[in-house]
Amino acid sequence: MSEIKDFIEKNSPRFLEELFKLIRIPSVSSQNEHKEDMHKCAQQYVVSLMEAGADEARIYPTTGHPVVFAQKIIDPRKPTVLVYGHYDVQPVDPIELWKSPPFEPEVRDGAIYARGADDDKGQSFMHVKAFEYLVSTGQLPCNVKFLIEGEEEIGSPSLGAWARENKELLACDVMLVSDTTMISEEVPSINTGMRGLAYVEVKVTGPDKDLHSGHYGGAIANPINTLCSMIAQLIDEKGRITVKGFYDDVIELSAADREMLARAPFNLEHYKKSIGVGEVTGEAGYSTLERTGIRPCLDVNGIWGGYTGEGAKTVLPSYACAKISMRLVPNQDHKKIARLFAEHFKSLAPASVKVEVKEHHGGQGFLAPISSPMYKAAAKAVEDVYGVEPVPSRGGGSIPILAELEGILNAPPLLMGFGLERDTIHSPNESYLLSQFHKGIESIILFYKYYNKN
Amino acid sequence: MSEIKDFIEKNSPRFLEELFKLIRIPSVSSQNEHKEDMHKCAQQYVVSLMEAGADEARIYPTTGHPVVFAQKIIDPRKPTVLVYGHYDVQPVDPIELWKSPPFEPEVRDGAIYARGADDDKGQSFMHVKAFEYLVSTGQLPCNVKFLIEGEEEIGSPSLGAWARENKELLACDVMLVSDTTMISEEVPSINTGMRGLAYVEVKVTGPDKDLHSGHYGGAIANPINTLCSMIAQLIDEKGRITVKGFYDDVIELSAADREMLARAPFNLEHYKKSIGVGEVTGEAGYSTLERTGIRPCLDVNGIWGGYTGEGAKTVLPSYACAKISMRLVPNQDHKKIARLFAEHFKSLAPASVKVEVKEHHGGQGFLAPISSPMYKAAAKAVEDVYGVEPVPSRGGGSIPILAELEGILNAPPLLMGFGLERDTIHSPNESYLLSQFHKGIESIILFYKYYNKN
Repeated sequence: MSEIKDFIEKNSPRFLEELFKLIRIPSVSSQNEHKEDMHKCAQQYVVSLMEAGADEARIYPTTGHPVVFAQKIIDPRKPTVLVYGHYDVQPVDPIELWKSPPFEPEVRDGAIYARGADDDKGQSFMHVKAFEYLVSTGQLPCNVKFLIEGEEEIGSPSLGAWARENKELLACDVMLVSDTTMISEEVPSINTGMRGLAYVEVKVTGPDKDLHSGHYGGAIANPINTLCSMIAQLIDEKGRITVKGFYDDVIELSAADREMLARAPFNLEHYKKSIGVGEVTGEAGYSTLERTGIRPCLDVNGIWGGYTGEGAKTVLPSYACAKISMRLVPNQDHKKIARLFAEHFKSLAPASVKVEVKEHHGGQGFLAPISSPMYKAAAKAVEDVYGVEPVPSRGGGSIPILAELEGILNAPPLLMGFGLERDTIHSPNESYLLSQFHKGIESIILFYKYYNKN
Repeated sequence: MSEIKDFIEKNSPRFLEELFKLIRIPSVSSQNEHKEDMHKCAQQYVVSLMEAGADEARIYPTTGHPVVFAQKIIDPRKPTVLVYGHYDVQPVDPIELWKSPPFEPEVRDGAIYARGADDDKGQSFMHVKAFEYLVSTGQLPCNVKFLIEGEEEIGSPSLGAWARENKELLACDVMLVSDTTMISEEVPSINTGMRGLAYVEVKVTGPDKDLHSGHYGGAIANPINTLCSMIAQLIDEKGRITVKGFYDDVIELSAADREMLARAPFNLEHYKKSIGVGEVTGEAGYSTLERTGIRPCLDVNGIWGGYTGEGAKTVLPSYACAKISMRLVPNQDHKKIARLFAEHFKSLAPASVKVEVKEHHGGQGFLAPISSPMYKAAAKAVEDVYGVEPVPSRGGGSIPILAELEGILNAPPLLMGFGLERDTIHSPNESYLLSQFHKGIESIILFYKYYNKN
């Protein structure tokens, strides 16, 4: 193990230099202006994977942004690990809150600061370096494939179809993923489930043009007021989502399961302090960890309408819009939920407005098996590195494509995430601790060793 | 009368050319980038007023944008008319909806299209041209003063103090204002009351930074959802504003008064069609004209928060904001209402968020006397030009400063407005009909003649 640590320590400056090459490419998948950058970033991953020792690495076009695929087959009879990651990142707004430019990575206080530092360039790159170690030292114990996609942040609209067409190429025994968090460096955890996601955009239109609020105010429906009322009705006073049929497919956890989840250490005061809120809130009858781990939720992710500039403008606007997402639990179908939402939302509209509901991306939630050899190998690897046994946990986020890939490839996902809450992914000043970057590489190397022994 | 018509017709091209000089200066009072334009526009008014025959015209500095003052005193014993207008205009957003650039006036289908074409450059300029006619033909029957301010669209924050300091300069018997609409060209009307205005901006803050909605969604208050719920609670199911004490000072109109107002011709189907709405709505128990004329209302003029760009971003934002205005009826004090609103709005906030309420401009509503000689002169002038007796009407908009000036100068306002609904002031493609521009000038000239005879 000391040999592994030495390798990581000695090569750390080079690893960072290589990672920064990936980070500097602004591969924001949701923004058309970055279309070229997507290709550049995929190309850079190909270079990294070939340098790390892949037999082949190439870019495959899809109907959307391209995917990167690489592999090293040492023996077709041996098991195959498919590493899944993504090279696309979230937009950087609000840009003014970044302390250093999002695409100029900077190390401060032992952490890399940049968009993608954690999610998912930093985390996916740990796998490239673990792979390099195993190949360069002749210790690779099984076949390895890499699937690095460019549309995770927009819901992987093209990957499912591409994966179905390339099922043989992707064939594997386990999907290894580092795109989640652990509880803390002191309390390492391995994710055993993720929430699904349904994401819609709504538009409420009143008059066919902006009007003077003095001349018309009081006599016609203001689309902003109306949108607010409709949104307010989506969650009741007990924190439950009012969309008809929303909870039909939610499986209530047993008392025993809830008790097990409650073992994960959690300090409410620390949690509140870390995000600057005075009180937590949510569905009645559930703890904070349950609310984000095993219960669905509904959040408005964006809202706009009318005059939002400096000063005052007395306009009664023509329309107002909102982006609304619902996190789902396993067994809830995101397509069904999006449909139920659209029906329900339209039913809330008064006759005085028109409503449009557009569906953005979505994905199913899933549960990873805990008792499997792969989970045990991961747990042993993490325990070796962190000195304590990892806690099984449930993540509130979504990697919508994983449930789909699991169905296509008939291989379970294993979520070894090394991100921390403090990394504030998707927000300004995203970061990734160097210590986690190093421990992650070490844990992944050990995972391969223990997994192969099983 | 034919002589007046001839004058207007003959000089119309020149009038337009002069008006366009004013319109081309983008005097948007609410935007700092136009600070210089405010001064330029005031200067251009000085030029126009001197050319029209004023004894003196000059710019006076205030604590905000400058005011233009001009006068012609023919005999201190004669009555004095103070023309009030404003040279500032509203912002032009959303700019992409303009068919021609907002500050490049264009005549299409018998109307001027530009920001300020009606409000209030077009309307105030009619007074300059009526004045020119009376002076140039030696028919000016009384003293005339002009007060053209640059902050009407932002609530005239500086004019009250300046007017108090310059009370003698502004001394007058009546304030003549063209900054409102009439019902239609076929049904001319004279405005006998305006609503007041309280305008606030609110900010609801949850976490101290943007968060990943998957990791935190369901466990903490989303500031957009919270803001929507708070806004939804501001108006009840009967269309009444729930702010505590809001209606305390509202004077209910008598059945007779309401009956008189109901005489104004109004076609609901035409009204709905003109703004593209399927249904009207508002406070229960009142007609559409009453809802905009004699009842207060509350409108969200703008809202923003979270991710509003292209595509989907799964952010749980740190804050959400809204601009909210309340139109008030005479006897409601805008300062009291703004205070009541702030108290009430804060009381709606759950413990999980922080709320800030910032007061923008405001102003009192007022009622103009109908039985006065000045109203009768205006009514006769309008009847001469339009061929039918004008209807007294109540406008839903606000000219907040008028109530204040009335108090300072002890002179009643007379609202001879020539705008039409179709002008869509404050919106893209603001326009002003040439026919109204011409009839307005003619009506104003006749007003002076009849007013002096009283």
